[in-house]
Amino acid sequence: MSQLKGYSDFKHFLISSPSEYVAHVEINRPSKLNAFIPEMWDEVGKIFAKLSHDPEVRAVILSAAGDRAFTAGLDVQAADQSVLGNNDGLDGARQATKHRRQILEFQDCIGQIEKCEKPVICVLHGISIGLAIDIACCTDVRICSRDAKFAVKEVDIGMAADIGTLSRLPKIVSSFSWVKDVCLTARGFGADEALAVGFVSQVLDTKAKAIDIATKLAALISSKSPVAVQGTKELLNISRDNTVADSLKYTSIWNQAMLQSDDFKVALLSGLKKTKPRFEKL
Amino acid sequence: MSQLKGYSDFKHFLISSPSEYVAHVEINRPSKLNAFIPEMWDEVGKIFAKLSHDPEVRAVILSAAGDRAFTAGLDVQAADQSVLGNNDGLDGARQATKHRRQILEFQDCIGQIEKCEKPVICVLHGISIGLAIDIACCTDVRICSRDAKFAVKEVDIGMAADIGTLSRLPKIVSSFSWVKDVCLTARGFGADEALAVGFVSQVLDTKAKAIDIATKLAALISSKSPVAVQGTKELLNISRDNTVADSLKYTSIWNQAMLQSDDFKVALLSGLKKTKPRFEKL
Amino acid sequence: MSQLKGYSDFKHFLISSPSEYVAHVEINRPSKLNAFIPEMWDEVGKIFAKLSHDPEVRAVILSAAGDRAFTAGLDVQAADQSVLGNNDGLDGARQATKHRRQILEFQDCIGQIEKCEKPVICVLHGISIGLAIDIACCTDVRICSRDAKFAVKEVDIGMAADIGTLSRLPKIVSSFSWVKDVCLTARGFGADEALAVGFVSQVLDTKAKAIDIATKLAALISSKSPVAVQGTKELLNISRDNTVADSLKYTSIWNQAMLQSDDFKVALLSGLKKTKPRFEKL
Amino acid sequence: MSQLKGYSDFKHFLISSPSEYVAHVEINRPSKLNAFIPEMWDEVGKIFAKLSHDPEVRAVILSAAGDRAFTAGLDVQAADQSVLGNNDGLDGARQATKHRRQILEFQDCIGQIEKCEKPVICVLHGISIGLAIDIACCTDVRICSRDAKFAVKEVDIGMAADIGTLSRLPKIVSSFSWVKDVCLTARGFGADEALAVGFVSQVLDTKAKAIDIATKLAALISSKSPVAVQGTKELLNISRDNTVADSLKYTSIWNQAMLQSDDFKVALLSGLKKTKPRFEKL
Amino acid sequence: MSQLKGYSDFKHFLISSPSEYVAHVEINRPSKLNAFIPEMWDEVGKIFAKLSHDPEVRAVILSAAGDRAFTAGLDVQAADQSVLGNNDGLDGARQATKHRRQILEFQDCIGQIEKCEKPVICVLHGISIGLAIDIACCTDVRICSRDAKFAVKEVDIGMAADIGTLSRLPKIVSSFSWVKDVCLTARGFGADEALAVGFVSQVLDTKAKAIDIATKLAALISSKSPVAVQGTKELLNISRDNTVADSLKYTSIWNQAMLQSDDFKVALLSGLKKTKPRFEKL
Amino acid sequence: MSQLKGYSDFKHFLISSPSEYVAHVEINRPSKLNAFIPEMWDEVGKIFAKLSHDPEVRAVILSAAGDRAFTAGLDVQAADQSVLGNNDGLDGARQATKHRRQILEFQDCIGQIEKCEKPVICVLHGISIGLAIDIACCTDVRICSRDAKFAVKEVDIGMAADIGTLSRLPKIVSSFSWVKDVCLTARGFGADEALAVGFVSQVLDTKAKAIDIATKLAALISSKSPVAVQGTKELLNISRDNTVADSLKYTSIWNQAMLQSDDFKVALLSGLKKTKPRFEKL
Repeated sequence: MSQLKGYSDFKHFLISSPSEYVAHVEINRPSKLNAFIPEMWDEVGKIFAKLSHDPEVRAVILSAAGDRAFTAGLDVQAADQSVLGNNDGLDGARQATKHRRQILEFQDCIGQIEKCEKPVICVLHGISIGLAIDIACCTDVRICSRDAKFAVKEVDIGMAADIGTLSRLPKIVSSFSWVKDVCLTARGFGADEALAVGFVSQVLDTKAKAIDIATKLAALISSKSPVAVQGTKELLNISRDNTVADSLKYTSIWNQAMLQSDDFKVALLSGLKKTKPRFEKL
Repeated sequence: MSQLKGYSDFKHFLISSPSEYVAHVEINRPSKLNAFIPEMWDEVGKIFAKLSHDPEVRAVILSAAGDRAFTAGLDVQAADQSVLGNNDGLDGARQATKHRRQILEFQDCIGQIEKCEKPVICVLHGISIGLAIDIACCTDVRICSRDAKFAVKEVDIGMAADIGTLSRLPKIVSSFSWVKDVCLTARGFGADEALAVGFVSQVLDTKAKAIDIATKLAALISSKSPVAVQGTKELLNISRDNTVADSLKYTSIWNQAMLQSDDFKVALLSGLKKTKPRFEKL
Repeated sequence: MSQLKGYSDFKHFLISSPSEYVAHVEINRPSKLNAFIPEMWDEVGKIFAKLSHDPEVRAVILSAAGDRAFTAGLDVQAADQSVLGNNDGLDGARQATKHRRQILEFQDCIGQIEKCEKPVICVLHGISIGLAIDIACCTDVRICSRDAKFAVKEVDIGMAADIGTLSRLPKIVSSFSWVKDVCLTARGFGADEALAVGFVSQVLDTKAKAIDIATKLAALISSKSPVAVQGTKELLNISRDNTVADSLKYTSIWNQAMLQSDDFKVALLSGLKKTKPRFEKL
Repeated sequence: MSQLKGYSDFKHFLISSPSEYVAHVEINRPSKLNAFIPEMWDEVGKIFAKLSHDPEVRAVILSAAGDRAFTAGLDVQAADQSVLGNNDGLDGARQATKHRRQILEFQDCIGQIEKCEKPVICVLHGISIGLAIDIACCTDVRICSRDAKFAVKEVDIGMAADIGTLSRLPKIVSSFSWVKDVCLTARGFGADEALAVGFVSQVLDTKAKAIDIATKLAALISSKSPVAVQGTKELLNISRDNTVADSLKYTSIWNQAMLQSDDFKVALLSGLKKTKPRFEKL
Repeated sequence: MSQLKGYSDFKHFLISSPSEYVAHVEINRPSKLNAFIPEMWDEVGKIFAKLSHDPEVRAVILSAAGDRAFTAGLDVQAADQSVLGNNDGLDGARQATKHRRQILEFQDCIGQIEKCEKPVICVLHGISIGLAIDIACCTDVRICSRDAKFAVKEVDIGMAADIGTLSRLPKIVSSFSWVKDVCLTARGFGADEALAVGFVSQVLDTKAKAIDIATKLAALISSKSPVAVQGTKELLNISRDNTVADSLKYTSIWNQAMLQSDDFKVALLSGLKKTKPRFEKL
Repeated sequence: MSQLKGYSDFKHFLISSPSEYVAHVEINRPSKLNAFIPEMWDEVGKIFAKLSHDPEVRAVILSAAGDRAFTAGLDVQAADQSVLGNNDGLDGARQATKHRRQILEFQDCIGQIEKCEKPVICVLHGISIGLAIDIACCTDVRICSRDAKFAVKEVDIGMAADIGTLSRLPKIVSSFSWVKDVCLTARGFGADEALAVGFVSQVLDTKAKAIDIATKLAALISSKSPVAVQGTKELLNISRDNTVADSLKYTSIWNQAMLQSDDFKVALLSGLKKTKPRFEKL
């Protein structure tokens, strides 16, 4: 597994390349259960913004270092300073403005994972609560190891989740009754329940096996036309947020350009010749 | 189980309080399979509008009296007078106006269940057809006993359901093919099928057990910060009807005020001290 | 099984009537795995536009002839001429315009299946890839035989699917993670997986049994009030693309007219008299 | 000018009927520049909800008593108690909830003017600031006398207008630059400026003349088919808030019922016979 | 003025080409004030669908033959048969379905004018009522002669306009108060009033002068890059029906293909060389 | 006129503070008619992002240095390298991706002007074409000097405007016919025409007088409650892109926090005491 060029400056994330065109991003603060401190928000946003346009990358794996946790969420002790800090005598409106700006900034950082033009496969394991769900909801395919313990935990600290879980989770799983149950009670749920409702699409016995499957999946996706793959991601995300009629129109506008790739011919030809196609960078 | 203060005037509903901050609303016309007559529409709307702002209530259970039915739907004999009544020689446009006004009024009454700021847990049992589905779709968490018999029955009386089932059901379960199957055929389905598609999130052996589970769930929710819980309900409902981008923005505006609660500190503190938090009324 | 009057001119589709008010449309190019050539697009659009207003039809079955395939998708050899054909020296903008017009035209043809006012039941079997998924997503109820092999295959020919799969599939099944998995990898999936995620609502042992079940389902639907059935289809499709509030309003406007049918009375009366109702044509 | 039956219970509004099918609502607290106290909100909501379904009414005039003001807006002294009152030691979230519920309630009251199914003609004169603009924006046709002095005054009391002006004004006048100018500065503007930007569609020399013109306009509208008039109002409001495609579809659903009125024939016939048509009540 | 090839089959419309790349469509039933009979709907739809993709056309003028009228609207005597015809004993729901299908069909025909990819300049003169407004609202630029007499006339025949006026007019002029005034009263208005509210953007002394100006405007537009012109029309129409954020995104997708035209270079080069650019067909 | 602290690093823009809480941003490349080179895009985005949260700023003036031009738009010679540069042998899809990313980046830079939380007053003079319109459409209030020469010039260089004019202009002026006229023809228009359609809200004799008026307007706005002013800007922009119902709801959520400012009391008190209010920073 080699380093990916240009990503060595990030302090709390390890970025490597397990195979051609695949990037692997690991949250790397295992001694603290990979809990997020303020500078990690910023880093995760910058990493995915960079991956989005990096021609060497066609698929991304997102996982976390250590055995115990994907992430335990916000590092409350650190957050104490920035989020909960005293209000400096601000009135309610000014305090609100401060909160709003910070929420929007955090949403933007995490949202870079969703905006990344390349598919992102999330491997969840161990403690995966709070922010873990916000992050996972921004990825495209979610798989987990059997030891994963999930919870939409925010209600237990006296707040409604505001970094994305409540906006995205109802759109990616099968039962609104279940979504409300887990979000209103903050109760934990395990890998099997996550699979049953479609939150994850596969459960593997161990984190290692899950990483292995994710790597193969990422490699498979990376072997396909990047024009086709990135267009598919874009159009599926458009579909989630638009009517069918608007999505169809958008699709036609998107593909009027994208059908002008050489990949179309490369793919057809390699299909006829039974050879492995090679696609240009994107 | 004590009475809930201020709700003794309703004729067709029993309202009690099985535990602190929990309201239990029972449809109470068991001799007629809890079928709805016109004044019941009005009552259910008023009850949930009142619960919505009642500081003594943090979670609501909605179930129905008797062993046989949650509700058999509209009381057709009674409806005969108001809905199907002769058209008094009205022309098609004037008859349409009369119908439209009545549909909107009925939708508004039932819609109060969804608009209620507090989470509503619905316990379904026995005959649960027609209006039962409209009502259940307005609640947040749905559980049922094994004897529940569901049907989107309206097609069998020559009409498309118009009080909410067709607008809400596709957004809360897992398969549009299944939704169309049950809505177009009016066929019955049981508890297991309801669970499989995510219409309910739990099936219990008996109505008594389902009520018991619902009561515990309601008590659990009521023990949490009401600011967190009610915000979570609001934001999940917003999510259903908006794009992710709009939901995220709305979330930031909502929480810029709500993070100014004391609940945040109370929850964090009681977490550290391992004590049960006490939250102010809302 | 009799012919359906007025549909004998179509070259690549067989249209029959297995029972009263039921139309059965079969894709009929089995020697080529029912792959689509340009004129078939046009035909399928015209057939469903005609069925939509045909008073003799109240439900439609869509299946495909032969044992091997529902459809293998676009006939790439034929498409070579029309879709992939050389660009005649056009610049990028003019080539784009040509592509866009053709995509929109193809979307419109297939979209007639969804716009058909009568419910459409799709029976899938054998090879059901690419365009097969686009088509199936336009129908109301999907069932399949155990031998069905599905794939959202477009990525493998270097393009993002643009006839509807990416716009509709996420709205009809249970897990967005699963949708992205199958769309980004173009991997195959079988009947059981299709059932598990809700893409189909029933799996039968053989194509023959699936056709039989579909015919009974269609006959059942056709025995109901066409005003109720067609309104239900319309309102469910409206629900998919609108907020709950807008859907409810639309529902009230729809039913202000539709409650003026005689079907209401016919259904209620036949319910009381235990007779089979007869509804007027629509 | 006669009283309109059923509207004598309102304390701060005079309701009369200057001609057949025309209602005239006057804000009646001239000694206080028609400033609004809490119970007036409630009354105005109830009056317009009642007019909406009153078959004796086909058009409504809304004006204000006295020479000096349409309304000077919120009665700040009275509001002191209800809006600005001390916060009873509530934390920021609970105080916010109290504010939100009250804003929504006020919006609902004023919004009844817009929801009234009958066209409302607003006659503005003298001081017409703050709430005057919120109210006027809910009416259909606005005219004023030359002495009208308008201002979107809220910024001057330290708040953004929240009862409707900021949501509706940009959609009814011609220049967003002008809207922002008057809303951000709270500066006054006169009748001519209001006419130039299309806020009002006529300016008359005196309030008396404006009332006279409004009465004639209301009488003219009332002489037309109420099915046609009320449908026109509904469809224009739908247009404001929807895409053209959605509006057209809604229009077709609306008129499928409304074309079944007898008014169509009555109007055509009276056109041929050159007689004054008589339309049934609605 | 030469004929435009391929448009000689239309019975009620004259299609000519006054200058290169300009088509001129004239409504041609002057003996009946250009009132519309059923087959004219169909023809107008077909003409504009054909012009939309015709590479010989870059701008279209729409006017009407004769001195007296652009169009007096629906030919009520002819319509009597098709629109108002007796209901054949249909119940309210079936009659509604018949109406709805016909309204949608008429909307689609007229809507082809808006969907035409080339800009359409409408020249209005004389009697321009009812359908005249529906049609004019579908065009891009409206000019008129001083003798034009406009009216949104539908209320006077007992119906709300349903072919597009109520859906489009509020989005193209400056004052909603004015729109409601003219739509609710069906009163006439002249060229100056139309100019003042922005319904037309120029008033000429005579129809001949207006045609002349329109021809020059069309020729000017036709001399520009058709990629630029048709993209501009598309993006402006998208803007009308979408949020700014969605429009901007759509714009980027549109132009990612369109910036690959040679027109960009041709235009820049001819700008430098001071020569008249020649653009390829589109 | 003093410098504004923290803005001295920008190369092509002058930022000063003509009065308390007012920032004045000047485009400063007069020798090239203030045409934009790539680094200017980036700078303008950064400046307005910084102003947005700068507590020393409550209103912004945007104008341009020199006598001849606000801006002549894109510097085509410079753009030659970055926008029009050769395509490096990229296929159509990859070239499209490069274009799309650049358009989105440019849109984001200019869009910061609109996203700036403080009101922006734009003073246009002289040549104001192409990008000048894109920029002006992002500001809140537009005024100009009599010598202003406007044009939506993009069609003349073979492209549809893609940085915002086509998405925003139709929503801020009075006549869609006029918008299409100027956008399709690229023709120039002057100050009076801009005033007549509402593109600008004032025309002054000279640039100096316009700057003077803008400064007074900015100073006036800055003297008001920043909570009220910034909320008003936000809610008006929300109104532009949402239905009235959604805007009203958003307004209630916004103000539930903002009514907790001290500004409310400060404003009321200073109103009673006839003193100049002092508001805390925001």
